[in-house]
Amino acid sequence: MAIFLALQSPEVEVIGITTIFGNVYTTLATKNALHLLEIAGRTDIPVAEGSHVTITKGAKVRIADFVHGTDGLGNQNFPPPKGKQIEQSAADFLVQQANLFPGQVTVVALGPLTNIALAIQLDPGFSGKIGQIVILGGAFSVNGNVNPAAEANIFGDPDAADIVFTSGADILAMGLNVTHQVVLSAADRDKMAQSPGKFAQYLCKILDVYFDYHRDAYSTQGVYLHDPAVLLAAVNPSLVTCTEGVVRVQTNGITRGITIFDHTRKRFPGTNEWSNKPTVKVAVTVDAATIVKLVMERLMSS
Amino acid sequence: MAIFLALQSPEVEVIGITTIFGNVYTTLATKNALHLLEIAGRTDIPVAEGSHVTITKGAKVRIADFVHGTDGLGNQNFPPPKGKQIEQSAADFLVQQANLFPGQVTVVALGPLTNIALAIQLDPGFSGKIGQIVILGGAFSVNGNVNPAAEANIFGDPDAADIVFTSGADILAMGLNVTHQVVLSAADRDKMAQSPGKFAQYLCKILDVYFDYHRDAYSTQGVYLHDPAVLLAAVNPSLVTCTEGVVRVQTNGITRGITIFDHTRKRFPGTNEWSNKPTVKVAVTVDAATIVKLVMERLMSS
Repeated sequence: MAIFLALQSPEVEVIGITTIFGNVYTTLATKNALHLLEIAGRTDIPVAEGSHVTITKGAKVRIADFVHGTDGLGNQNFPPPKGKQIEQSAADFLVQQANLFPGQVTVVALGPLTNIALAIQLDPGFSGKIGQIVILGGAFSVNGNVNPAAEANIFGDPDAADIVFTSGADILAMGLNVTHQVVLSAADRDKMAQSPGKFAQYLCKILDVYFDYHRDAYSTQGVYLHDPAVLLAAVNPSLVTCTEGVVRVQTNGITRGITIFDHTRKRFPGTNEWSNKPTVKVAVTVDAATIVKLVMERLMSS
Repeated sequence: MAIFLALQSPEVEVIGITTIFGNVYTTLATKNALHLLEIAGRTDIPVAEGSHVTITKGAKVRIADFVHGTDGLGNQNFPPPKGKQIEQSAADFLVQQANLFPGQVTVVALGPLTNIALAIQLDPGFSGKIGQIVILGGAFSVNGNVNPAAEANIFGDPDAADIVFTSGADILAMGLNVTHQVVLSAADRDKMAQSPGKFAQYLCKILDVYFDYHRDAYSTQGVYLHDPAVLLAAVNPSLVTCTEGVVRVQTNGITRGITIFDHTRKRFPGTNEWSNKPTVKVAVTVDAATIVKLVMERLMSS
């Protein structure tokens, strides 16, 4: 949905898609990205395959295939894509683009942050050359969605997330505390289903699994528009309000993957793990109604 | 302040005081408890000395002596107490009292939870025989006060806290999210200073260090009434409203001591570290105005 939304947003020039594990393994995520670009008729956009493992390599990759189906696309058995990913890895592609267009590339990071952490490790100047990194990740002062502590994207690679959050890059993080406010209702879906637009038609086919998951996990008849909300906030920052401070990620133990934001109002005794680290922006409010309206409009046109 | 408040509360029969490290080492906490009972003329109340080390014994004990002064009593150089603690340890005393008066003893736990965890280890029936345990501890959906993650009492012995929270005892936890709402202003203190009551007079002498700490750490002219709020909530549960769920404590890493409450609204995939654990009550709102009023009234009378 976020990829289609990017392609349908006149403010955005999509210069590439990088893939990562999360709802499916990375190999399948790459195939799905190529497939979606074929559906959209945008095979001119390069797809760079991301890491198959977490940055520490020891951790077992978590695949939440119950959210969007085992194919990641609502169990629709789409034919395999004709196209192929580029030769460059996602991290290499990120570094190359940041160097080609310093300060001008926005990364909309909708999965675990492994590729971005690898880019930071590859090129120490990356965090200064990349434009803004808008992250779907974390759960700030609310429960997670993998377990009470952790949100899925951060939980997918907590070590990578901690590297990215403390890298000094210009970062806006949108956690469950805001994305859980952005809901596509069953009525919205039915309205989309009546649109002749190809994106609306395609999405209504694959959304059933996602609706089923929300009914089972949250007892709701709507679905969270996590990724579309972040894509639109990257396009139009006025859709969120933010606070600024240091975010650190716990990398082990029962709260592995928890994101802790230091509001910096209190002077703590001595120094701690948040002291003297670069700050990031964290969304605290979101204009959910406008986001849902934009999602519907943009996906139903064409 | 909480000890005097308990002695001044007609609803309360104080059957003993147990000591623990936190703002001072345990040895000094014991001396201070004996001293305060002498000030109050209540040397009939037994003082049982608590553990000198955390339950895992490996962790260095943290002493926050900048909060109440190096003597824990506002750097007043009071003479040493004449009395002595009883022979029993705090944990033994807790177990004994729970067995003597099953279901009738309330523990107001205002420091690290080492003694209570030791009591649980000593007597597997303790959590069923003790009455309510009202805990000053944790920071639920807010930053800590030791660092952005952890509140001081839980940080003092996270392993003990996790044992207590998952013990199945009847527990009410009051974290910084509520106790930071209960503030004694400088004007309140000045009013207390004009009272002829011995408790008010004594407390106004020792409060300067605590006010100084709040001015430095929080830029405020008031002080948080953490411990008195918990004592009064133990006496009158209607001073707080609560939610109920499972609380776990992270015991290592950068968020060591963080308290994570599972609101149980979401069904998480599979099981996690919160699954099938006993629930506790966690305070979510507090009647701060009534608490401050009761603190003033009870400490100024007599």
